[in-house]
Amino acid sequence: MNGKYNASKLALSFVKDEMTIGIGSGSTVEVFLNLLGDRIKNEGLRIYGIPSSYQAMIAGAKNGIIITDLLDKEPDLCIDGADQVDSRLNCIKGGGAALTREKILAFASKKVIILVDETKLVEKLSMPVPVEVLPFAYGYVMKRLSSICKPNLREGKGKVGPIITDNGNFILDCDFGIVENPEGVDKELKVISGIVENGIFSSKLISAVIVGNNSSAKLLKH
Amino acid sequence: MNGKYNASKLALSFVKDEMTIGIGSGSTVEVFLNLLGDRIKNEGLRIYGIPSSYQAMIAGAKNGIIITDLLDKEPDLCIDGADQVDSRLNCIKGGGAALTREKILAFASKKVIILVDETKLVEKLSMPVPVEVLPFAYGYVMKRLSSICKPNLREGKGKVGPIITDNGNFILDCDFGIVENPEGVDKELKVISGIVENGIFSSKLISAVIVGNNSSAKLLKH
Repeated sequence: MNGKYNASKLALSFVKDEMTIGIGSGSTVEVFLNLLGDRIKNEGLRIYGIPSSYQAMIAGAKNGIIITDLLDKEPDLCIDGADQVDSRLNCIKGGGAALTREKILAFASKKVIILVDETKLVEKLSMPVPVEVLPFAYGYVMKRLSSICKPNLREGKGKVGPIITDNGNFILDCDFGIVENPEGVDKELKVISGIVENGIFSSKLISAVIVGNNSSAKLLKH
Repeated sequence: MNGKYNASKLALSFVKDEMTIGIGSGSTVEVFLNLLGDRIKNEGLRIYGIPSSYQAMIAGAKNGIIITDLLDKEPDLCIDGADQVDSRLNCIKGGGAALTREKILAFASKKVIILVDETKLVEKLSMPVPVEVLPFAYGYVMKRLSSICKPNLREGKGKVGPIITDNGNFILDCDFGIVENPEGVDKELKVISGIVENGIFSSKLISAVIVGNNSSAKLLKH
């Protein structure tokens, strides 16, 4: 079994009947949802889920999760993946362009558990930071960002031109080199008008990270 | 002639041939655009405009302004209205739900001139602050805001349910009572995940305010 499977298996032990779960996006979360779906079927659990993307909504519904909204429920637990996790448990997310709703869900949840396979662990964050931008602000934000990083408009397969997020916006992948101060970069990006959200998830947001490898999984906490 | 007309007339003297203008939204800007349209026709000016809303785009194009984008041009001048202007020239905007693009344009412009009739002047800002919110985040943001203000979902004529901005989002009108520290409230709102932008325009963003009354107009600067 691979790291995603073993991490998901351990995460499953945190789910209790009648819980509301914030559902992150990406392939690891999909492995988790399939395992949770088996438990729901076999044990007759009632689990509510608030999805962070159309992908998460479809995968959640397919697995018997009752889809709901932040207006109705406060998530007890948010389960999500990450693209990089540093030694202090700061993360970069957004490889799947779902970072904004994922971040809102993380803020709204009582507990946030990030699942990764061990290849995602790094000493310091270094991948480009995904930034969600209103299309109207694209020209302005590119100019503003160019003085602090190398921003690159994300274009996608299956669609001409820029990829469009579930919120109708663009993604800029912003290369800061090594991110020495993730919280500082997060704040710097937040104040730019036209930026909706960015993919830095400060360790303050994260309750625990579950790291899986081919044979097992372990829980990392602050 | 009324205050909006006299303010617009004075603002017109700042417009030069070949300029690019950030076009705010609302009834005062529309008066300005009609006067500018006369100048464009009579003097054969070539004026580029970046509109902050579909309303501004339609009114601009109708008046002979060449519509362009922030990707192509940097506005020399942004002309906009406001709902309240305090004694230090801080503003609240967003009565027409166009605050986000208006604020991006203001940040992107070399100079920002706000046109108001004198009824908009107040000692301190006191009207509810319009806040643009992703629909997905509505339940969460309402909870977060309820501890610092009285938020109210804006619903509109001509459409059932919440009004939808040109960016596809909701507007919450947030009653803070008297806003003693506009920059503080702006910062407090900016860091909440799910909020796209808010209607506080700090005086730092504003180059000048033109105030019109029934007989004349005057220019206020810091």
